[in-house]
Amino acid sequence: MKKIASLGKDFSQWYNRVVLQAQLADYSPVRGCMVIRPYGWAIWEQIQAGLDQMIKAAGVKNAYFPLFIPYSFLEKEKAHVKGFSPELALVTHGGGKELKEPLVVRPTSETIMYRMYAKWIQSYRDLPLKLNQWANVVRWELRTYLFLRTMEFLWQEGHTAHANHQEAQEEVQRALLMYRDFYRDYLALEPFVGEKSERERFAGALQTFSTEILVRDGKFVQAATSHDLGQNFSKTFEIQFQDQDGQLKYVWQTSWGLSTRAIGALIMAHGDDRGLILPPKVAPVQVVIVPIPGKTKEEKLREFIASVVRSLRGIRVEVDWREGLRPGYKFNDWELRGVPLRLEVGDRETREGAVTIVSRIDSEKLIVNSEKLKLKVDSLLAEFQNKLLGRYRQFVRKNTHLVNSWQEFRETVEERRGAILAHWCGSSDCEAAIKTETKATTRVLPLTAKKEPGKCVWCNQAAQYRWVFGRGY
Amino acid sequence: MKKIASLGKDFSQWYNRVVLQAQLADYSPVRGCMVIRPYGWAIWEQIQAGLDQMIKAAGVKNAYFPLFIPYSFLEKEKAHVKGFSPELALVTHGGGKELKEPLVVRPTSETIMYRMYAKWIQSYRDLPLKLNQWANVVRWELRTYLFLRTMEFLWQEGHTAHANHQEAQEEVQRALLMYRDFYRDYLALEPFVGEKSERERFAGALQTFSTEILVRDGKFVQAATSHDLGQNFSKTFEIQFQDQDGQLKYVWQTSWGLSTRAIGALIMAHGDDRGLILPPKVAPVQVVIVPIPGKTKEEKLREFIASVVRSLRGIRVEVDWREGLRPGYKFNDWELRGVPLRLEVGDRETREGAVTIVSRIDSEKLIVNSEKLKLKVDSLLAEFQNKLLGRYRQFVRKNTHLVNSWQEFRETVEERRGAILAHWCGSSDCEAAIKTETKATTRVLPLTAKKEPGKCVWCNQAAQYRWVFGRGY
Repeated sequence: MKKIASLGKDFSQWYNRVVLQAQLADYSPVRGCMVIRPYGWAIWEQIQAGLDQMIKAAGVKNAYFPLFIPYSFLEKEKAHVKGFSPELALVTHGGGKELKEPLVVRPTSETIMYRMYAKWIQSYRDLPLKLNQWANVVRWELRTYLFLRTMEFLWQEGHTAHANHQEAQEEVQRALLMYRDFYRDYLALEPFVGEKSERERFAGALQTFSTEILVRDGKFVQAATSHDLGQNFSKTFEIQFQDQDGQLKYVWQTSWGLSTRAIGALIMAHGDDRGLILPPKVAPVQVVIVPIPGKTKEEKLREFIASVVRSLRGIRVEVDWREGLRPGYKFNDWELRGVPLRLEVGDRETREGAVTIVSRIDSEKLIVNSEKLKLKVDSLLAEFQNKLLGRYRQFVRKNTHLVNSWQEFRETVEERRGAILAHWCGSSDCEAAIKTETKATTRVLPLTAKKEPGKCVWCNQAAQYRWVFGRGY
Repeated sequence: MKKIASLGKDFSQWYNRVVLQAQLADYSPVRGCMVIRPYGWAIWEQIQAGLDQMIKAAGVKNAYFPLFIPYSFLEKEKAHVKGFSPELALVTHGGGKELKEPLVVRPTSETIMYRMYAKWIQSYRDLPLKLNQWANVVRWELRTYLFLRTMEFLWQEGHTAHANHQEAQEEVQRALLMYRDFYRDYLALEPFVGEKSERERFAGALQTFSTEILVRDGKFVQAATSHDLGQNFSKTFEIQFQDQDGQLKYVWQTSWGLSTRAIGALIMAHGDDRGLILPPKVAPVQVVIVPIPGKTKEEKLREFIASVVRSLRGIRVEVDWREGLRPGYKFNDWELRGVPLRLEVGDRETREGAVTIVSRIDSEKLIVNSEKLKLKVDSLLAEFQNKLLGRYRQFVRKNTHLVNSWQEFRETVEERRGAILAHWCGSSDCEAAIKTETKATTRVLPLTAKKEPGKCVWCNQAAQYRWVFGRGY
């Protein structure tokens, strides 16, 4: 096993090596595309299962829409096509013939879905219509950054239609807070949650909200977004309904999504010099058992371990019986892969009917009687999840900087990075200048931001709020 | 609600209306593509959950490979590219530029996956490698037949690599029998299981095995396949491993898949004049409760129904509170949608603390005390699943015809359709002639077929086995 680089020394090398060595993903021969390997896919399955439950609990139903979109559909919404056209993959030939109109491989599904919404929605009784799909999407990209920037990625996209704007706005907030809760409760992460600036808005939306994760090198990963589409799409796709008052009206729409980028954020936010640290809620293996060969007969060791596995029913357990590898090698390997708890079973444990437990987060070690094991492991896993969240919150606090002048802003970005809370007047010109000078962009205006009159760090004009700034992936 | 056509009168009209009116799927504005609506998608989710469990239990792990394949990859395996090239969708432009080499939207993933296998497999210790992916694939097609023939469809594709041929052959059979068991235990269907003829073989395989479902109009749906790829792909993609004897060898491979066609087969095999009949194992709604308004106060009715729902925990229940629709309309609607059990709750039921249960399969009606409801519903659902399978088996028996001459063959195909067991000498010319004359093709040589010397129905030459013939979708 190659030693992975120190996280502090070369973060991007650390990240790539962890992803490759933990076998989460691999580069593919198709430029811009990645292969998600079983261990990485198993994390995605856990993410899907958790989030899907929350989506369904909100009364949203899953469905599936075509991969291909006629180019003319995208053209209908001006801002939308402008935003996406540099990133499109075009199918121009099919079945051996050139197509009259090229098909776009979906970069997002508003246009193909809303054409159907126009057909299905007739009356106020058909509203709200709330659908979600789990799908692959393509946005042209040749410089791969595993999980974070790939030509094809996987996501869920929710699309809802409502009878009035208020209800749509409530749905935008519901989805946004669902993502916040999901990150907190499953991935042990506390995102910055708030509104995006006009410049960073989704192409075709009135307002875009986002959850932004600060990661170990002080940069941000945009981790899920929720858009108020207003009536922009319903007017171009003629999605009208007869309201209770007999009037024909356009619906109000929202869309919201979370993608495989979440895995990138997870790795970057929790890892350490030894590799991944996975929250128990989404860890494909929550407990790994490493047998330590010694004087105990193998048969007896196997028997004891089998009884330990049986007692851990309901927990995702793996026993590492690989031959020809020393226990120390296995310890490192599973630490690299971020498994929360390691159980060591050797002579002493078999003799005493006990198990040695080592936690990935702080290497704390304790010996537990095998009869009390299940209870103890359950509580250790819950504790692990909390500790990880607590540790992450502390990291965010330490790396959030209140900044009041341009000099301070520039120094902070360059020397300390992190989340910078600074006044901004709202002008796109200032925003662009700040980006050019420092590579830092507006991340969000936090939902919790309070009015606090001050001066824009760039132009010194009056500004009402502090925005979160930072460099992004 | 439009009355659906009689199944016996116009099967294809019946099928389309059922799919559309039950809101399983809809046509999309993209020719050849379909939209899977929530009710249809929920069936697919049940199918995925059941089959995924069986796949994992066999030690196969899920992963995900790119949607795009360089055209040159497909060209490497001659038979493979020949088989698929008429069906390819080509991406020629990306990110605003023309590509040097077109990318193929995957019609199946052998070539893109095996390039990675060549990288990952080095030693016998890396074998067997058993991966599966749930993904969308595209095969050019403009004449949509909902679920059965669409340009894009969803499936799982398993791909394994082994150290020797025998192990690969065992895997081919394991996957095949897994599909048989899945169809029987989840979809209440008993497929014909066996080997495909050379003509019907997967492009690039040594042998192809298939499960074939006979449906209500006497035609077949190919419902899942399992291929022995031999070393055809390992030789072209250089997938070599160092064996225990130190020799460098090519791996032996298999691939196997089941797609959204399964939903088409399910509908066509179990439906009746009133619409769908869904096996409880995969029914998105297993029990629907229809409130019957009467003298009982609505509050009391709602309270009683809420207690019934609570008592049915673990069962997929829906209460139809839709306003402005008569109970009779609701009965028809849920029958169309194939829900196994309908619970009626009105005055009498509320007063007596009982529930009226009506079964979709035979309209049998019984009244059950609400205290015993859960037990009774559990057993009724299990019974329903068995009855449906029993009824289907009877249908297959009734529609399987032993045929010994060409005249008999032709008459049977034209007048009765169904599964025709007839001697065939194995010549592709005879097979082609039979197809031209009757549109019937070889479906499979059943695994259970016994040697039974006879004469080929077409050429009268010696033939050792009876093959299953029939018209197909």
